[in-house]
Amino acid sequence: MKIGILGAGQLGRMLALAGYPLDLDFVFLDPATEACAAPLGTHIHADYVDEHALAEFCVGVDLATYEFENVPAKTAEFVAGRIPLLPAPVALTVGQDRLSEKTLFDKLGIPVPRYMPVATREALEIAVKNVGLPAVLKTRRLGYDGKGQAVLRKAEDLDKAWAAIGGQPLILEAFVPFEREISCLAVRGKSGELRFYPVVENVHRDGILRVARPRADDPLQAAAEAHATRVLEHLGYVGVLAFEFFVASGKLYANEIAPRVHNSGHWTIEGADCSQFENHLRAIAGLPLGSTALRGPSVMVNFIGNTPSNEALAAIPGVHIHHYGKAPKPQRKVGHATVTAGNDAELETRLAQLQALVAAVES
Amino acid sequence: MKIGILGAGQLGRMLALAGYPLDLDFVFLDPATEACAAPLGTHIHADYVDEHALAEFCVGVDLATYEFENVPAKTAEFVAGRIPLLPAPVALTVGQDRLSEKTLFDKLGIPVPRYMPVATREALEIAVKNVGLPAVLKTRRLGYDGKGQAVLRKAEDLDKAWAAIGGQPLILEAFVPFEREISCLAVRGKSGELRFYPVVENVHRDGILRVARPRADDPLQAAAEAHATRVLEHLGYVGVLAFEFFVASGKLYANEIAPRVHNSGHWTIEGADCSQFENHLRAIAGLPLGSTALRGPSVMVNFIGNTPSNEALAAIPGVHIHHYGKAPKPQRKVGHATVTAGNDAELETRLAQLQALVAAVES
Repeated sequence: MKIGILGAGQLGRMLALAGYPLDLDFVFLDPATEACAAPLGTHIHADYVDEHALAEFCVGVDLATYEFENVPAKTAEFVAGRIPLLPAPVALTVGQDRLSEKTLFDKLGIPVPRYMPVATREALEIAVKNVGLPAVLKTRRLGYDGKGQAVLRKAEDLDKAWAAIGGQPLILEAFVPFEREISCLAVRGKSGELRFYPVVENVHRDGILRVARPRADDPLQAAAEAHATRVLEHLGYVGVLAFEFFVASGKLYANEIAPRVHNSGHWTIEGADCSQFENHLRAIAGLPLGSTALRGPSVMVNFIGNTPSNEALAAIPGVHIHHYGKAPKPQRKVGHATVTAGNDAELETRLAQLQALVAAVES
Repeated sequence: MKIGILGAGQLGRMLALAGYPLDLDFVFLDPATEACAAPLGTHIHADYVDEHALAEFCVGVDLATYEFENVPAKTAEFVAGRIPLLPAPVALTVGQDRLSEKTLFDKLGIPVPRYMPVATREALEIAVKNVGLPAVLKTRRLGYDGKGQAVLRKAEDLDKAWAAIGGQPLILEAFVPFEREISCLAVRGKSGELRFYPVVENVHRDGILRVARPRADDPLQAAAEAHATRVLEHLGYVGVLAFEFFVASGKLYANEIAPRVHNSGHWTIEGADCSQFENHLRAIAGLPLGSTALRGPSVMVNFIGNTPSNEALAAIPGVHIHHYGKAPKPQRKVGHATVTAGNDAELETRLAQLQALVAAVES
């Protein structure tokens, strides 16, 4: 079976690495010249709105998916009109607009921070009155890794925030004084079969995920699964979906969903019975899903900007190296490592060694 | 770092799948048109003795290895004269000739079944007198998966055996009435660092490996490691080596070595901390070796001739599917599955389900 993937970044690369053993082949469409999944399949080097290239992409594959949530709606429609595109385009439509997302969460009874859409400078004043401060002003579309966001702590911050990101559709969200940020990686098969990985505790810095750690027996596992189930079933979703939450006063508040495999699930390659990448492929290919159970303690650390040397990484027991084949660049995700261990204490020791290496090179 | 691999079969394919996360790229040289590792790198489609192609291969890579032990000696010399070739060609020379192998084992004090070289029909009579019956007559070179072998049980079998494989250099080996066949997967780094996977119990049928199961705390672990160490150090070996033994009356008798990653080590992908494929690459790239510890119970089953459907395989919990991208053909290794489980009883249940699927389709 040949799978078409819109996007050829590291998520596409890890999908392909998980897919060859299942007898899948891959075609990627990505406008980047040095798309890092390209060595692992056929790379159609074209813009997402190039209909000639999209037609070529569709002719060559049995079904398509995406590894990039900002695939233009027109592109998704074009592809879905010709071959199965999973998850269905509606997930992209919802996930690309923070207002649609929050509206859906509201409709499904999933708690969200207070929010209000903001179209003008005047509307921002009104939104601040309603939502309160501190709050986060965000672009409704195309934000990622903390880009397109401004924190408002006091009235004087409004002008600066507006100057930075005003003039496009925005949303103001109450700042949640969270104790933790967690994500729930969920997967739904074509038959409606559902599986959930243990919730993951995430640490961000400068808006970029740094550390993701699955938590066995988290008290919020059941609540996170219930929320994810509502979204998956409402969207008739097929594939892996990541649902990010804030935890405040021990309760979940929905932050956002990503209709794809997710950085906070990379630990599943070594840390779970069946990885998020394989489960996404199983789901879209119509196969029974794999077990999402933990194989033991694990934690993932991102390489941001640069990577420690393989010599240093490989010297730490239990460290599993994942380079993405990308050139170093400040704030760019260029790889990650997952640490596994026989017990939590051993995991902490190894994690501390790994973090020291990462801190010495990251940019 | 770009790695050149002589051969582009399933072992090359699994080396590449393990290598991309380490930031390695791959060039394969293989005469087969449909070499199954080809989609995972650059495939130089040429004969092993095509010096023009070999020169192109050498220019494009930082170092080379092989996934096929019958690489011609001239090819190995050509490559090793230009770039580092690891394991060093001496391992090929020894491993390609059953007589050199047995002689080396003898020299290193490693017990072997009685044996005698056989060049003529008359020499076969003499060898049978010395070695006794039952015995196995084998071609000294190019045998694999039971090909080039004939079992001699009584005097009348000699003519038939000679007719089948006579006229080339042969070796007669005493038939070992073995209780078990085991293999020791060993890896040696550039610094001399040594690691050993838990010994693997192997079941063959029609000369082809069917089932391989790592054994924790096997009473013969230390002896197998001691024998492997002698060979690795004598050869100044760098990389993964598989050492196959017969077990008779609880003692090891050396059968053969394969200077490469090996079918009896495929379970290490999911069953060990660091797979044989990653450890081979770590070794030849000069990196510290990874842990060879078990992650839990596991067992591997080969797909011979044909593969069960992905639907049926994926429905068994803990089954990890590995297709090689090869067309079905009787007696051909076209894939394998490794079963993992939380305990031995669960492993047996899952293994029985898997074996039923395999038995229904194999050819």
